[in-house]
Formats: sequence, C-alpha cells, structure tokens
Amino acid sequence: MANPALSTPSRPSQSLPAIFGRYRNEIGSALKESLSQGDLFVYQMLRYALGWLDVDGNAVSGSGGKALRPTICLLACEATGGTIEDALPAAASLELIHTFSLIHDDIQDRDRTRHHRPTLWAEWGEPKALVAGNTLRVVADMSLWRLAQPDAGAGRAIRVADLLTEAYLTMIEGQYLDISYEGSPGISIAEYLDMISRKTGALIRCALTLGAIIGTDDEDVIDAFRDCGRSLGLVFQIRDDVLGIWGDEGTTGKPVGADIRRKKNTLPVVYAMSRASGSDKDLLASIYRDDDMGDDEVTAVLGVLETVGAREYAHRLAAEHCDMALESLATAELSPQALKDMGELARFLLVREH
Amino acid sequence: MANPALSTPSRPSQSLPAIFGRYRNEIGSALKESLSQGDLFVYQMLRYALGWLDVDGNAVSGSGGKALRPTICLLACEATGGTIEDALPAAASLELIHTFSLIHDDIQDRDRTRHHRPTLWAEWGEPKALVAGNTLRVVADMSLWRLAQPDAGAGRAIRVADLLTEAYLTMIEGQYLDISYEGSPGISIAEYLDMISRKTGALIRCALTLGAIIGTDDEDVIDAFRDCGRSLGLVFQIRDDVLGIWGDEGTTGKPVGADIRRKKNTLPVVYAMSRASGSDKDLLASIYRDDDMGDDEVTAVLGVLETVGAREYAHRLAAEHCDMALESLATAELSPQALKDMGELARFLLVREH
Repeated sequence: MANPALSTPSRPSQSLPAIFGRYRNEIGSALKESLSQGDLFVYQMLRYALGWLDVDGNAVSGSGGKALRPTICLLACEATGGTIEDALPAAASLELIHTFSLIHDDIQDRDRTRHHRPTLWAEWGEPKALVAGNTLRVVADMSLWRLAQPDAGAGRAIRVADLLTEAYLTMIEGQYLDISYEGSPGISIAEYLDMISRKTGALIRCALTLGAIIGTDDEDVIDAFRDCGRSLGLVFQIRDDVLGIWGDEGTTGKPVGADIRRKKNTLPVVYAMSRASGSDKDLLASIYRDDDMGDDEVTAVLGVLETVGAREYAHRLAAEHCDMALESLATAELSPQALKDMGELARFLLVREH
Repeated sequence: MANPALSTPSRPSQSLPAIFGRYRNEIGSALKESLSQGDLFVYQMLRYALGWLDVDGNAVSGSGGKALRPTICLLACEATGGTIEDALPAAASLELIHTFSLIHDDIQDRDRTRHHRPTLWAEWGEPKALVAGNTLRVVADMSLWRLAQPDAGAGRAIRVADLLTEAYLTMIEGQYLDISYEGSPGISIAEYLDMISRKTGALIRCALTLGAIIGTDDEDVIDAFRDCGRSLGLVFQIRDDVLGIWGDEGTTGKPVGADIRRKKNTLPVVYAMSRASGSDKDLLASIYRDDDMGDDEVTAVLGVLETVGAREYAHRLAAEHCDMALESLATAELSPQALKDMGELARFLLVREH
C-alpha cells in the first residue's frame, strides 16, 4: 500500500487514452505475423513474453500491453501524412526490440516477476531466456526488412534500419551506464538525465522520428518530432521512476518502494542525494553503501525523499519536459486532430498510473 | 595431457595456411574502425573480447584470432570476381557477430576462460557481459550498413543484411537446440547434424554466400558457394568437437575431455550413445544421467569412445563433407588459384589443431 502521506492526491483509476485503441488491432496483427513462424519452443517463450500465452502455452485473452512505442510511431506517421500500413513494420520492430530488452533486463536485474507473471529466466532458466531475447531481437530485424519490400524505397528502408540500430545501441549504452552506476548513488542529475535519455529515451525518440520519416520528406518536421520524442522519453522515464517508488502495486505489479529496495538510480533518489543535508545525507549514504535494504531502510529513504520534496521535484521536471515536447511540434504545422492526439499522449505519459 | 592411446598420430605444430594471412590487415583495420568510437568502458570490454587489449586495457601485440569467417567471406568474394573492399563490411560484421555469440555463450555455459584468458562475465560480471554482447551485435549491424554507402546498390545491401540476419537467427536457434538437448544425451546423429548446421554452420555458410553475392550476380555460382559453405560448416564443427575432447590443451586452451566433462552434445559422444551396447551403453547412460562428472567418469567415457571408434567415425564424416564442399564448387568455373585456395581452406578445417 502506498503511504498516503507521501502520495500526491490520488487519481481515479485510469483508462488508456483513445489513441492507444486506434491502432491496437493493426499492431497486434503485425506482431503476431512477425512471430507466426518458428516451431522451436523458444517461439512459445516469446509469445509468452509478449503476453499472448500463459506459462503453459494457453492463449490469453485481451492480452498485450499498451504498445506505447508502436502507437506513437504510427501516430507520428499519420500526423505527418503517412499511412499506418507504411509504418507498421517499423512499429512492430520497436515493440519487439523493447520486449527483447525487457527479457535481458530481467536477467541482469534478477527480477523474477513482471506484470504479475514469472519472467522468462525465472520460468525457463537463464540460458534459454538469454537466447530467447536474442531471438526476439532478430525477429525485430526481420520485421523491419519488410519495410524494404516491395514498394517502399530501399533508401528509406536503410535510413530507418540505420536509425533504429543507432537508437538500439544508444539504449544498450544507457543500460550499461545504469549498471555501472549501481552501488554508486552519488550520480548527478545531469548524469541521470543522460543515462535515461539513452536507456529509455532513445527508443521513444526513435519511434517518433521513424514515424515522421515514413510519413514525410520534410526534414524540419522530422526534426520537430525527434525533439518532441527526446522530451517525451524523459517524461516517460521520470514517471516510471515515480511509479517504481510510489506506484500502486496492483497497477504496476511492483510493491511500493520496489526501486528503492533495489537501489535503482531513480530521479527522486538522485535528487535526494544531491539535496539532503546533515543526518539525512548520512542516512542515505549509509543505506546505499550497505548491502542489505530491508523494510526499515526503505521506510527511512522514503522519509528523506519526502523531506526534500523529491516526488514533487520529479513531477515538476517531467511536466516541464511535457511542455517542451508539445512546443517542439509548434513549427510542424500539424492538423488540429494531430496536435490534440500528441497533447493527449504527452499528458498521459506525465500522469499515467501504469 | 592427451592420452596417447586415444590420439591419432600426432601432427607437427600447425601454422595457418597462407589464405589466413592474405586479408589479415584489411580485416583488422575494418574491425578496429567499427570499434573506433565509443567512450564507454563497454567498448574496452569489447576490444578485450576481440583480443586487442589485455584485461587492464593495455594493447596486446600480434593479437586477434584467425578470423575464419571474414577470411572465407573475402575468399569467396575474390574467387567470384569481387574486390576485398566491397566485401569488407560484411566480413567484419561476420566476425563481430561471431564474437558476440561467444560472449553470450560463455555466460550460458558458465565458461570462465577462453583462449587462456578470463571470459567477459568472469571478469566484469554477468550484467555487463550481457550488455557488452548486445553492444557488439549492434556494432556488427552498423558495420554492415556501410555496405549500403555510398556506391554499392541499396538492393544488394538489403539482400546481404537479410541473409546475415537469417543466418544469425538460425545460429541462435541452433544454440537453443543445443541448450535444450543438454542432459538428454540420447539425440540421434541426424538431430546432432541439424543442430550444428544451425549453431555453427549458419554463419560459415553465410560467410561464403555473402562473399559470392558481393562478388557476382551469377545465382548458380552463389548457390555453389552456399552448398560449399553448408559442408564446410559441418567439417568445422565436427573438428571442433574432436578438439574439444582430444585437443592439446596448450593449443586449444581446453583440458582434454573438457567437452565430455561438460556433457556437451558432441558427435563422438552422440555416436557412442548410438553404437555402444551392453555394459558400455549402461555406463554412458548412467554417467550422463548423473550430476557429477569427475576424472574417473571422463576416463570411462573416453574408454567407450575408443571402443566404438568414435574419433575415427567423426573424422571420416568430416572428411566426407570436406570432399562434398569441394565438389560443390565444380560447376562454379573458378580460376585454378581460387580452387587451390578453397582446397587449402577445406583441408585446414578438417585437420586443424586449434
């Protein structure tokens, strides 16, 4: 249970904005097609990872997550004059790469559950999970090659593949930084922002950029979407950090304080480290130096976060980037509907509960 | 020390055939260029993985392996009329993907040393090694994109990327099969051949196919090189199996019987399982059922392998595929020099000591 004293006023249970329903069927079909072949059991593991099967291989109804990355890619493509069909291979590829990274993340972080279900390595062992992740990464590539056939220009396909590869590399570099920073909680807010703009931001930025590249040849518009994506990536991850600390367990699938217990480099903690003074500073330093993080330590850290106003700071920073994201699009001359969609998306990322 | 009773007559210490020297500088430069950027420490880990740095980050002289895959790619390209420059991006990409797969293999197999040095996960921990492997996989992609710029046709670049992706997926599927078969030593020789033709064969087959695709537009010649590669892949892995059991520790970096101790599904063991009878069969079955594999068990398995002639069988099968590899090229109308080179390559793979 969240500590009410630490929460901002609670919001009613959220439904996803309409934009997440608009492309749901197309995205689901594209993803399923990309995994339609493959007899080896590893493909069943991947269908499980994508939420279509339960652990015994039975179909799960109403499955799948919100598919954020493909959705915003298609949104950007339509907003810039393209069609859903044109961008679907790239959109599917983004979701597959994202899911791949979660599979490997769970191995690295030794996370045994995700969305209330066992993670792949917890269920099938680490070697198979590692290979399954690599397999999904290739399936993502193959989905992308469909861009190149038969109509779309090969030149554009290569640009898209190039960008996605670069984004993916940036994402891995961010994961590497994240691992490197573990156990060294004194990172600056600038280091934190650099790390998350790579780890999480790269793929979100890429999703909007790719959508725009497929939708238009106007490089200024493409730039605007990239800038928008850069800001939205920060909004997304900062909100993720807040949810990882104060989110509702039933919604996020993580207990309150989960990311404190795991000593993750989240913005509230990074901020608190930089702002706390006196005994609070000593307390934080000693807790993060210590190997064990029990309930008492988590509560103590939550107390310091409240003292320094870490949650409010995080929300304020996210809100600023949310505004910047929408300002980036001012020059792109979008239709009123497209602007409305992008605004709905940005605000959802800022306040989402899951 | 190898047990002399189990060894075929010893050969003099081998030097690499001349073809491995022919492209060494070009391959080294292309690989180094592909890793020339990147400030994060993860790139230093990768330079270590490629044998250019020691564990402290100091340059290692005369470094690097034999670079089999890029060498045969360039060989095929030149043999079919192409230039080294045209095929270098693909060649470098092949080596990077191969090295990437070793990094992840070592994590999966819990191997702490490779070529007498600590493996990445043993030195820097598993999370960083996992990420380092993924990073190298992307660097490989990026090397490949160079094919598309500026002169080479985008269509061919996409075909090459597509093939490499497919080969890579096949390789992972083979790794998956290999893991799945662990602890179930009763696999058939057909299952074994299917597994290695994916796990190891795919990338070698791909190396020759890509070289030919870049060298010529003649689809019959490309087919001939693909068939040749299919056979050479089997030769390579069967020889690897033999070396993993009877190879000289000083040359291979593995103690004698290493792959028996680890219960790997190697051809000699698979063959012995299928051929042993009576008490030998029971002995093998009980040893492979058992969790622990000590020196006594390894010696006992080596004894059964000798009884059934497993080493000779493996060599005979490899020799047959070596012949088939060269026969595949009969229709390709290669120059006498190219035929000589390919013959030298095939025979080396059959009898190599490392």
